[in-house]
Amino acid sequence: MLGYFGPAGTFTHQAILGLRGDPRWGALVDDSRPYASVAAALEAVRSGAAEAVMVPIENSVEGGVTATLDNLGDPEAAPLQILAETVVKVTFDLAVRPGTQLGDVKTIITHPHAAAQTRAWLETTLPGATVTERGSTAGAAEAVADPSSPFDAAICAPAATNLYGLTPVAHDIADNDDAVTRFVLVGRRGPCPAPTGHDKTTFVAYMRANHSGALLEILQQLAVRGVNLCRIESRPTKTTLGSYCFSIDAEGHVDDARMSESLMGLKRICQDVVFLGSYPRADEVAPHLPPGADDAAYRAAADWLKSLRK
Amino acid sequence: MLGYFGPAGTFTHQAILGLRGDPRWGALVDDSRPYASVAAALEAVRSGAAEAVMVPIENSVEGGVTATLDNLGDPEAAPLQILAETVVKVTFDLAVRPGTQLGDVKTIITHPHAAAQTRAWLETTLPGATVTERGSTAGAAEAVADPSSPFDAAICAPAATNLYGLTPVAHDIADNDDAVTRFVLVGRRGPCPAPTGHDKTTFVAYMRANHSGALLEILQQLAVRGVNLCRIESRPTKTTLGSYCFSIDAEGHVDDARMSESLMGLKRICQDVVFLGSYPRADEVAPHLPPGADDAAYRAAADWLKSLRK
Amino acid sequence: MLGYFGPAGTFTHQAILGLRGDPRWGALVDDSRPYASVAAALEAVRSGAAEAVMVPIENSVEGGVTATLDNLGDPEAAPLQILAETVVKVTFDLAVRPGTQLGDVKTIITHPHAAAQTRAWLETTLPGATVTERGSTAGAAEAVADPSSPFDAAICAPAATNLYGLTPVAHDIADNDDAVTRFVLVGRRGPCPAPTGHDKTTFVAYMRANHSGALLEILQQLAVRGVNLCRIESRPTKTTLGSYCFSIDAEGHVDDARMSESLMGLKRICQDVVFLGSYPRADEVAPHLPPGADDAAYRAAADWLKSLRK
Amino acid sequence: MLGYFGPAGTFTHQAILGLRGDPRWGALVDDSRPYASVAAALEAVRSGAAEAVMVPIENSVEGGVTATLDNLGDPEAAPLQILAETVVKVTFDLAVRPGTQLGDVKTIITHPHAAAQTRAWLETTLPGATVTERGSTAGAAEAVADPSSPFDAAICAPAATNLYGLTPVAHDIADNDDAVTRFVLVGRRGPCPAPTGHDKTTFVAYMRANHSGALLEILQQLAVRGVNLCRIESRPTKTTLGSYCFSIDAEGHVDDARMSESLMGLKRICQDVVFLGSYPRADEVAPHLPPGADDAAYRAAADWLKSLRK
Repeated sequence: MLGYFGPAGTFTHQAILGLRGDPRWGALVDDSRPYASVAAALEAVRSGAAEAVMVPIENSVEGGVTATLDNLGDPEAAPLQILAETVVKVTFDLAVRPGTQLGDVKTIITHPHAAAQTRAWLETTLPGATVTERGSTAGAAEAVADPSSPFDAAICAPAATNLYGLTPVAHDIADNDDAVTRFVLVGRRGPCPAPTGHDKTTFVAYMRANHSGALLEILQQLAVRGVNLCRIESRPTKTTLGSYCFSIDAEGHVDDARMSESLMGLKRICQDVVFLGSYPRADEVAPHLPPGADDAAYRAAADWLKSLRK
Repeated sequence: MLGYFGPAGTFTHQAILGLRGDPRWGALVDDSRPYASVAAALEAVRSGAAEAVMVPIENSVEGGVTATLDNLGDPEAAPLQILAETVVKVTFDLAVRPGTQLGDVKTIITHPHAAAQTRAWLETTLPGATVTERGSTAGAAEAVADPSSPFDAAICAPAATNLYGLTPVAHDIADNDDAVTRFVLVGRRGPCPAPTGHDKTTFVAYMRANHSGALLEILQQLAVRGVNLCRIESRPTKTTLGSYCFSIDAEGHVDDARMSESLMGLKRICQDVVFLGSYPRADEVAPHLPPGADDAAYRAAADWLKSLRK
Repeated sequence: MLGYFGPAGTFTHQAILGLRGDPRWGALVDDSRPYASVAAALEAVRSGAAEAVMVPIENSVEGGVTATLDNLGDPEAAPLQILAETVVKVTFDLAVRPGTQLGDVKTIITHPHAAAQTRAWLETTLPGATVTERGSTAGAAEAVADPSSPFDAAICAPAATNLYGLTPVAHDIADNDDAVTRFVLVGRRGPCPAPTGHDKTTFVAYMRANHSGALLEILQQLAVRGVNLCRIESRPTKTTLGSYCFSIDAEGHVDDARMSESLMGLKRICQDVVFLGSYPRADEVAPHLPPGADDAAYRAAADWLKSLRK
Repeated sequence: MLGYFGPAGTFTHQAILGLRGDPRWGALVDDSRPYASVAAALEAVRSGAAEAVMVPIENSVEGGVTATLDNLGDPEAAPLQILAETVVKVTFDLAVRPGTQLGDVKTIITHPHAAAQTRAWLETTLPGATVTERGSTAGAAEAVADPSSPFDAAICAPAATNLYGLTPVAHDIADNDDAVTRFVLVGRRGPCPAPTGHDKTTFVAYMRANHSGALLEILQQLAVRGVNLCRIESRPTKTTLGSYCFSIDAEGHVDDARMSESLMGLKRICQDVVFLGSYPRADEVAPHLPPGADDAAYRAAADWLKSLRK
């Protein structure tokens, strides 16, 4: 069974529905089950209740989803693994009960992130409206669908507008037209999907205590082997202020020689490294490798070394 | 006038009250005014309504406060400056109306971060209680103070317990005893406080587009001049996924030669650098400088160069 | 008065004659005086006997000229400065007394470097000939010019063939057609020639004792400021085995901001830096600067920093 | 058969005699044969005429022995390998025919390096004496031994004083008391001596053309893997001026994981790497390794990576 951080009608739901055509997961999509929190969804995987779950990991406006990053990166928890990623365009409706006009909207309910991403539009279009926050945009839509609701409108995904029988009085109201959210399908630790030539590897590197140059050293381990970064995010290790770990997406697959050697290099110099999987990039962009960084160069160098020892 | 991200009774309120003994700000503390959001507080400084405001910037468990980081780092907004920092220990009460017993608590209200930080305690002590989220822990306390409230208890700062006449049925219920939050007092751009020998400088570095090695180069500009990092956090630039800036605290004062030269070096190689001030460290820890990094070494090198040109 | 590492008829002599058209030095060339060693020539500058002297510094086949490198780089000696550089193509004659035929040549005299650079030609063309070594190729030509000489031929520069009235029975006999030697005109410490946009700066960096990463740090001081290397050569500091200094040519002029800041950076982290001048490159190739490395970028960054402090 | 760069009575001869107690080479020492040049000695190994030869590689005052460095590093020649190193203190006699007094010495003969290393002593003790140069200090001693010699004294090794029946009128006349020369025993490519925990690896790295940052990249390949340098020397590649290769001694054995991975890394990013062997350090100093650089750390990281892929 698959799961997702629900409720139905959110962008996360939309992300898992996007797997319908996937040869491995497509057949399971329609049975997928919503979980009330990212933690609950990931726990369902750890317990075996779900085979894999879809959770948000990063938004182009808000940044990293800390609930996801911290849970996946926890070195004490049972290890999980990212199996796939998908990127969904963030687009919001202003959704009302049938009959309400745009000009009538005085009270709005939505998730804080959605409120933040539509603030300028609201100030221009509905300057007097009050905004109340709710835990999800789909929950906001559900609330508005209740005829006795004190709220005139929800800011929500089009999927939620449909799901709860609402009417969109405005489409695409996000201030930033290009906002996207990246979601990851997370399962238990196991073999990675085969390399495709356009893969990404995710891991969390924990610095040794009180080592001010550690981040520079982490980056150098990757750079000398020709591995580029896609994303790096510091997260507190939840002990003292000033103690961080780094959540990193890097270009390449653990089966690529440059990546496996980099991971081993990090493992040696870091206090700990939590590996979170290698999987195809959603944008299918292949890395631009510096000279000597591909598998053929690694093999040639290994052959050369062997020839010296004969 | 001073301000803070309110309402009264929060840790931010407690942080600003901590300035009472401060020679520059102490006299203004009792008149300080709460603002409903970090953005509103910072806007009050920009508009001149407040001289300076206290806002949270980092929590040892939750990480960076993105509302603060993104607002301060915005290169399009009128520039602000951090004037001082203070660190407050996070300690939560379970606060009830007088007469309620711990065993009676079935419904709890609090801020999501407070809920997250007391989750284990709640699961052990009050396994059946439901938790509802509110925008601030002080707002939660205020809600419980209402005799008709549907909530039996609030998880809040001791300041809020007192402010709203509640009774703490449990103290110090955070799962992590060492959690602290760091707050900054923010004013308009102007001269920095004089160097103390234990200062911190905060800035945001924007990478040039599509430059995978940029973070390494940023760190090297600091490292070659003997400047250590205290904190580094990536934030999306809110354009496309994968475009980041880096919010950085570094050891030293802009009047220290190593720091001014580093900032100019970053300005040259980055798309933009937003300077956010130099100010004394709350922990008063002086940096451990490598050889050749202090002002005397910089002066000696400048004298040497001048002597060559005679 | 000018001087050069003689005797007359060597490539060094040819190098100083090449200054004839030079606006500053041309008038002095014809009076220039040979010195018997590099050390004697440089000492003549230190003592004031010569205003400047021409000495070899580097050969494309043999490498650095250690007598020159070590004398210029000596931190205990009175400082000298490179005023100009010139590159001379190395081309050898096999020079005989008039009447001698190529087939008659059995005994040859020359400088060890010239012998090394013509070895393959000699083995092919005159396999039975014996080669005797002399301190200079011009001295070898002089020896052959003596009718009672035991030597049939000298390997020498065309200038020496002419000077001593010899006949070249073979031209251009160097095994490597592209061999060149680089010479520098050395004077006392003083103002450098004005920047031309295609300058070189020469200096010697002494590492602090027992510091294995020092060379990496030296290179990083240059790299972060956009300064490229033209030449780097380690030289023993003449104390214990394993103690080195580095003789470096770098692209740019001490009046270029990136170079002056680099030199000061090196002065801070090194035990000592001996500055040996900025002067135009013989090949007039302008550096390829990375973004942010030109003087305009340095000025803009300094203005920005000043604006922050207002 | 063993060989050495002769003639008998030089420091190189002394270096090979120092192998007498060596379990592998001792029995062969007394039959060892002198060769007239470094090139001839190394060629004897390549042709199979000698099993191994002793040649000088580095002097603490003069620097690298370029004839040795360039011959060993030549990527076109049949590969050789350093089997052992030995360090010999440089100590010079002023050697005369029996009966000559120190005050009688007017004409001296010696090798140019010996002349350079005793210059101050000669200027003080025998200010009027003339010095003539000869190809080796032992050859100088041989010349003085001839009763009809025009030379009163030789500056030579004590071994040559004895060998030619001369009398030392002064001992230890080098200006620098600490001067030493390092010699290497060179054989054909084959298995390296087993690791001892205090080994050195020698190789030559050829940069790709026109790549100004190449040296920095070479050093970083070693630094990220915890390999320290003992010696680095640039040598021209004998093509154009400004094209260099780097002759490097690094701490560790090719069988140490950090060294083999470094060599493969260099092979990938360089145009070529010429491996010249791993062998015990003469000083038996073990490297000071950074955390994560020993074989146990490499094995642990490899085991970790394997565990991820199960």
